[in-house]
Amino acid sequence: MARYKLTLAYDGSGFAGSQRQASKRTVQGELEKALRKLGWTGRSIILAGRTDAGVHATGQVASVDLDWSHADSDLVRALNSALPGDMAVWSAEVVDDKFHPRFDATSRRYRYRLFCQPIRDPLRERFAWRVQPEIKADILAEAAKLFIGAHDFSAFGSPTTPKGTTARTVMKAEWTQVADDEWQFDVQADAFLYRMVRRMVFVQAAAAQGKFPAATIAEVLAKQAESRKRSDGLPSGLAPAHGLTLIAVAYRKRESVGQ
Amino acid sequence: MARYKLTLAYDGSGFAGSQRQASKRTVQGELEKALRKLGWTGRSIILAGRTDAGVHATGQVASVDLDWSHADSDLVRALNSALPGDMAVWSAEVVDDKFHPRFDATSRRYRYRLFCQPIRDPLRERFAWRVQPEIKADILAEAAKLFIGAHDFSAFGSPTTPKGTTARTVMKAEWTQVADDEWQFDVQADAFLYRMVRRMVFVQAAAAQGKFPAATIAEVLAKQAESRKRSDGLPSGLAPAHGLTLIAVAYRKRESVGQ
Repeated sequence: MARYKLTLAYDGSGFAGSQRQASKRTVQGELEKALRKLGWTGRSIILAGRTDAGVHATGQVASVDLDWSHADSDLVRALNSALPGDMAVWSAEVVDDKFHPRFDATSRRYRYRLFCQPIRDPLRERFAWRVQPEIKADILAEAAKLFIGAHDFSAFGSPTTPKGTTARTVMKAEWTQVADDEWQFDVQADAFLYRMVRRMVFVQAAAAQGKFPAATIAEVLAKQAESRKRSDGLPSGLAPAHGLTLIAVAYRKRESVGQ
Repeated sequence: MARYKLTLAYDGSGFAGSQRQASKRTVQGELEKALRKLGWTGRSIILAGRTDAGVHATGQVASVDLDWSHADSDLVRALNSALPGDMAVWSAEVVDDKFHPRFDATSRRYRYRLFCQPIRDPLRERFAWRVQPEIKADILAEAAKLFIGAHDFSAFGSPTTPKGTTARTVMKAEWTQVADDEWQFDVQADAFLYRMVRRMVFVQAAAAQGKFPAATIAEVLAKQAESRKRSDGLPSGLAPAHGLTLIAVAYRKRESVGQ
């Protein structure tokens, strides 16, 4: 028996989120089903991050304790045969048996894609949010910088545990133009509040549409640090789940005992 | 009653191709159903190009004779309300009542996407072909150039009418690298043989994987022009439909009578 770290990719469209739910199709549920076909008898795997229904991943991480007498590459192949087509395991490696995909993570990276068009685009809307009216790209760029650093993000999400802190450190927040009408937001933080990226994107898009001044973001982040109260200087709402992808979860190098 | 030219986009994954078929979900079938909700009583619309099951479009063109007393933009809006989410009408304009989307077309442009990875990618495989082993990009670039010009393409497809010619003129054939492991093929011709783009991509990918010398493509195209016989110097096969998108159909300017 060894602890394996699995890296997962999935198209979130067909899942009711990552976490197992009775009688709903979830990432955890499908992965556990596939593992059972390979002889796994454990009770539960552990996922690094909770992703909502519709959110995609190319770098979700799972841990599982498994008896496997073959090569890691055979485990990858066997799991991909057992998994449905909208999920894939991209790597499997033996790690320290104290490895915990959530508690040991040092940072997470997400990407959010949006594009500006007046009419729906059936080829892009599975993985990107269509926004109208047009956004001003320079305001997006300006707004993103305001998030960088350690802040109280309570205006941008809920704690992931009942009495958890709302302080988070954002290391990277950056928009890149990827087509005439399309941008992607890359954001990295030590950890994220519940729905924090979708909220950050919604607020930035509204600012870039001229609905309120981007500087309010900085004011709200500063105010939070003092008063710990929610501010209503920002529009309420969330960018839709389908534009969001969990790109990577980072760990200190030492957990891997590799092969 | 006026003739309208409609520009259509669709995710081909859920369609049994573009052309109407009894009891199958097709692009034509869904568009005719939407038009009927708007009072259309015609027998058939006409599409510019036939796309196979799984092939996508951002620039398919349809013509329809319709009584419509409102603005073109209202027709677009009404059609998009009536159409399923995996299709959209991007524009509608009144054209000359002799306009024929297939016969009047002066060229068509297709795009094919492929990427090289050993393991499936649920986020990309809806719109791109996963290829293994790795391809050599310089061979793709070299191979593409061989198609440009007027050739007998009988080794690359079947005529679209029973006794049709297999001569076609390719104006553009070019690969662009769009990510570390991903390329797209943009190809424009006066018209295409049945399954010609998928066959061109399959042959180029095989050459770029080192399975046969790319120069064979030029030899086969030259031989065809003399002998009009299929050559077996090329590997047989087709790139899968899901990597292909019909990007645009071009017309002489004069068909549009505008408003």
